[in-house]
This record gives sequence, structure tokens and C-alpha cells, in this order.
Amino acid sequence: MAGIQSDPSAVDTRSSASKFDPQNDFVNVTSEALSLDAAYKAVHSTAAGAITTFSGITRDNFDGKKVVRLEYEAYAPMAIAKLKDICSEIRSKWDVCKIAIFHRTGVVDVGEPSVIIAVSSVHRASGLEAARFGIDELKATVPIWKKELYESGDLWKENSEFKPKAASGD
Amino acid sequence: MAGIQSDPSAVDTRSSASKFDPQNDFVNVTSEALSLDAAYKAVHSTAAGAITTFSGITRDNFDGKKVVRLEYEAYAPMAIAKLKDICSEIRSKWDVCKIAIFHRTGVVDVGEPSVIIAVSSVHRASGLEAARFGIDELKATVPIWKKELYESGDLWKENSEFKPKAASGD
Repeated sequence: MAGIQSDPSAVDTRSSASKFDPQNDFVNVTSEALSLDAAYKAVHSTAAGAITTFSGITRDNFDGKKVVRLEYEAYAPMAIAKLKDICSEIRSKWDVCKIAIFHRTGVVDVGEPSVIIAVSSVHRASGLEAARFGIDELKATVPIWKKELYESGDLWKENSEFKPKAASGD
Repeated sequence: MAGIQSDPSAVDTRSSASKFDPQNDFVNVTSEALSLDAAYKAVHSTAAGAITTFSGITRDNFDGKKVVRLEYEAYAPMAIAKLKDICSEIRSKWDVCKIAIFHRTGVVDVGEPSVIIAVSSVHRASGLEAARFGIDELKATVPIWKKELYESGDLWKENSEFKPKAASGD
């Protein structure tokens, strides 16, 4: 697995019918802390009557075990291409204004967001549905792996919702 | 219609079976600017793996007319009681950690939020569904009226989704 550097400029979406809108869709895979305010501002538009956001956060427990921290690892160019594909799919299904999908890599401490999705829309239903689709699709298709660290010891854990065959943990 | 002062302490929810949780549910009707960050922090919990937010924002157009600004008017004690009822209904339907529902009154300029809902949950589905239910139910049941001001002149407009018979505009 390669490093976690984000290099969006190196990646193109592969579908010639892509609806990814580089002026209004923002994706990032970064080791920096994520900011809900930044995601909100990225999608803010005076034409939008609604902004929906979803933040996935490291919680302090999993399967009854105390989580000390999470680490995420991604092959950033592929992850970014997949995030762009999700934007494209959202635009093919819903009428939205702007989309932001940010994923963090590296250590994400308990209480901190590892992923933020924000969608602005004229009407609320499309934004709410698009945000939900976005996080479900991200979990299923974006090659980002997590390592959960428990009080009892380390445990590698692949993304359990990832649909394609991914490198499995131990 | 009474003023816009918020006086949560004066109001009790009426159902004896209320699931409103005063430690974890936060409702407010205020003439102050709303803060997404404040709503996020209100529902943040290290036990939560997800925070969903919805912001309803004054957009710059409606029915092809340019919107100059919106004004919201509420009878705050009743509005707050209804917001608490929504929290209670959410808790009866979904397993969520914390809920915040804030509504602004008075003038809400284009681009600013008039309502913010935030829900934290262990798993994402419950929070996403609860936030959507929350805004749909708010539109349908909370007695808050809006006056839309167009470039072409004023127009009173009641909440078009409000289900009970409300005082109609002119």
C-alpha cells in the first residue's frame, strides 16, 4: 500500500460520461485534521436552500472493546478517483448544487472526524438523499483501510463494508 | 402572534410518555445567528460514530423571484414545545445519542441558516434518518411563519408544509 499523500492533480476520473464538476465538487484525502466548517463553506451557495453534512467519527468503543485510536491508510490517487466517481454518481441521480467529500488518513483520535461529506441543494430532499448515498457508497467502494487500536492490543481491520475484494487484514 | 423571545424553562412537553432527554436534547428558538459549529459541539459524544447535520438556508430565489430576505416569526413557547416533541419522537423511533434543533426568528439574510438540526448516533443510518425526520416534522408541525421579501415587493407566506390549520398570510 502506498503512502497517504494527496495528489488530486494526478488523477482523472475514468468515465467519459462523468458528471464530476470540478468547479463545484471538492474531494480530498489528507492527513490533516478535517474541518466541518471548511466543508460547509466549500458547498455554501446563495442558490442553495439546504446544506446536509455527515461526519464519520472515531468512537470510543467497538464490539465492547475500548478503542484507543484509529489509523486510516489509503492509496490516495485511487481513493480520490473513487470519491470523484461518487460525486459523478450523485449528480446523475440528484439535483444538487455543490458536493464536498473529505477523508482523513493516518491517526484519527477518538472524537475526531475521519470523513466529512457536505452537499448543498436547492431543496432538502435531494441533499439529504445524496449525502446518505455518498457515505454508503464511500464505505463500499473507496479503498481506505482502517486499523483499530484497542486497549487490549492492536487489530488490523479492513473496511468491512468494502464490496470489491480488498487486501484482507490479519 | 407573540414575540420571538425564547423561554425554554416555561414550557413542558405534554406527553407523559415523552422520551425528551434534557441532558442530551437541545432545542432553541432564537433571534441570534445560528452556528453549525455550536450544533455539532452540542451533540458531539465520544460514544458516537456519526454526526448528521441539516441546515436550512435562505436562498436567493423562490418561484423565479429574487429573494431579498426572509423573516421568521414564532410563538416561541409553543415552537419549543413542538421541537421537544420532535426529539421525543426521534428517540421513540431511532437509537441516537444527542439531538440539537435550533430555529432562528426575525430577519435571516440570504445565505444564512434559519434552522439547524444535528444528530449524533453510534451508527450512521439512525442519525441520517433521524435528521431527515426532524426537518420534515419541523416543517409540518412547528408553528413558525415566514415572510419572504422579494425585489418586487413584500409577500407574506405561511409555512406551506404546515399540516395543522395555521393563521394564513395575506
